Amino acid sequence: MGITLELAQAAVQAAHQKSLELGVKMNIAVVDAGANLVAFARMDDAWLGSLDISIKKAKTARFFDMPTGDLGKISQPGGPLFNIEHSNTGLITFPGGIPIADSTGRIVGAIGVSGDSVENDHIVAEAGRVAVANR
Amino acid sequence: MGITLELAQAAVQAAHQKSLELGVKMNIAVVDAGANLVAFARMDDAWLGSLDISIKKAKTARFFDMPTGDLGKISQPGGPLFNIEHSNTGLITFPGGIPIADSTGRIVGAIGVSGDSVENDHIVAEAGRVAVANR
Amino acid sequence: MGITLELAQAAVQAAHQKSLELGVKMNIAVVDAGANLVAFARMDDAWLGSLDISIKKAKTARFFDMPTGDLGKISQPGGPLFNIEHSNTGLITFPGGIPIADSTGRIVGAIGVSGDSVENDHIVAEAGRVAVANR
Amino acid sequence: MGITLELAQAAVQAAHQKSLELGVKMNIAVVDAGANLVAFARMDDAWLGSLDISIKKAKTARFFDMPTGDLGKISQPGGPLFNIEHSNTGLITFPGGIPIADSTGRIVGAIGVSGDSVENDHIVAEAGRVAVANR
Repeated sequence: MGITLELAQAAVQAAHQKSLELGVKMNIAVVDAGANLVAFARMDDAWLGSLDISIKKAKTARFFDMPTGDLGKISQPGGPLFNIEHSNTGLITFPGGIPIADSTGRIVGAIGVSGDSVENDHIVAEAGRVAVANR
Repeated sequence: MGITLELAQAAVQAAHQKSLELGVKMNIAVVDAGANLVAFARMDDAWLGSLDISIKKAKTARFFDMPTGDLGKISQPGGPLFNIEHSNTGLITFPGGIPIADSTGRIVGAIGVSGDSVENDHIVAEAGRVAVANR
Repeated sequence: MGITLELAQAAVQAAHQKSLELGVKMNIAVVDAGANLVAFARMDDAWLGSLDISIKKAKTARFFDMPTGDLGKISQPGGPLFNIEHSNTGLITFPGGIPIADSTGRIVGAIGVSGDSVENDHIVAEAGRVAVANR
Repeated sequence: MGITLELAQAAVQAAHQKSLELGVKMNIAVVDAGANLVAFARMDDAWLGSLDISIKKAKTARFFDMPTGDLGKISQPGGPLFNIEHSNTGLITFPGGIPIADSTGRIVGAIGVSGDSVENDHIVAEAGRVAVANR
């Protein structure tokens, strides 16, 4: 349903490679169009608490077909989706989760990364996304 | 903490290869000594419900340091551990989960496989375990 | 509410000592009359999956004011309380959990032990109970 | 896997002693490197709701290898990790959880304390940490 294991593993591999370049230790998760896990890797000594966060970021990105950071902007106090994080047994709405689209623009899955600053999490997720987008 | 990502991915790869040989579609999970996920792969069109089962099998095998099928033999009605499956937010006690030991015999993680008959699940898990055992 | 920390720790200590004598590695939990944890100890290299089981055994013993093994006899297929384990976010109904009473016979808490055979689990739990019963 | 029961109990004992000095009633939890409970004590008449909080504080401190209060500073509305508390079946991000390192600086576990003001919770946790750090 959407992304294949081959592409999901390519996304994980690209994100892993980017993490090595940045010198960061990441948890990397890829879900399919059904928001179910397809491929996952936890780098040695990566934060243990980031395991669940990486998967939740990938799910969140696919649940709403937008980068997690975009959702976080409108889930703040006073925002239109305040505390949406309570749904779906827990969302993560800060950066690090990004939808993955195929060459037709159809979203086929998403990637979630956690283990460092949210800026680095996003950079690594983007490296994974780009590696397989439009294929 | 136990198995490295490199070895966990090698176990997943070996199990994947064995699945292709058998013509089966599997979910394959590897956890570390802390029973936390390190690597995961879901083959295309594998049963969706087996995703959670594969992870639970890997966790169960590490939780009690024995193949899941061994635990299942004593969790039957009338057996000494009847309904142990209710612990740890859910165990899976039929075959397909196997602990992974290093060259000193110390258990460093476990592999869990789900997607076909329990016999095939076990065969595929064993292929993953053997590929990285004693390293 | 019921057992004091002093007595709970004495029960854990006695159970720990009995475990050392038997050469077994246990998780040991003591709950109060409200079935809430008061003291806990996990011995080095004890089964990780037994952590939750030891706490659930202690809770189960207090929930129904009887040894967990007694409940297990009537929760079997065809028995009057078949699958009672589904309640209370998970019960454990094989031996290893025992209520603790004070000198008036009033139940003030319970001890739960997990990590070896159910026979040894029960022996270790009983050692903990006896050490503080009737005080 | 990280901290031994002996050291975990020493940390609990030191935190308990500090609580008595301060005249506060605490729940005290120590987890190992896998974020799994090793030792726990609830003082008589301590807040019942603090039981779960103390364990979650210890887990949170190990999940991200930092004091829980540090994480709380960046999980506020508008902060980079807003609502991270929804991950890992619930984090606690106010003070009272602190990682425990051995003499090589490697984190081997964490302590979590709850039952009074967050300032006192932190002071008590620190007493537990110091008692076993660098050993």
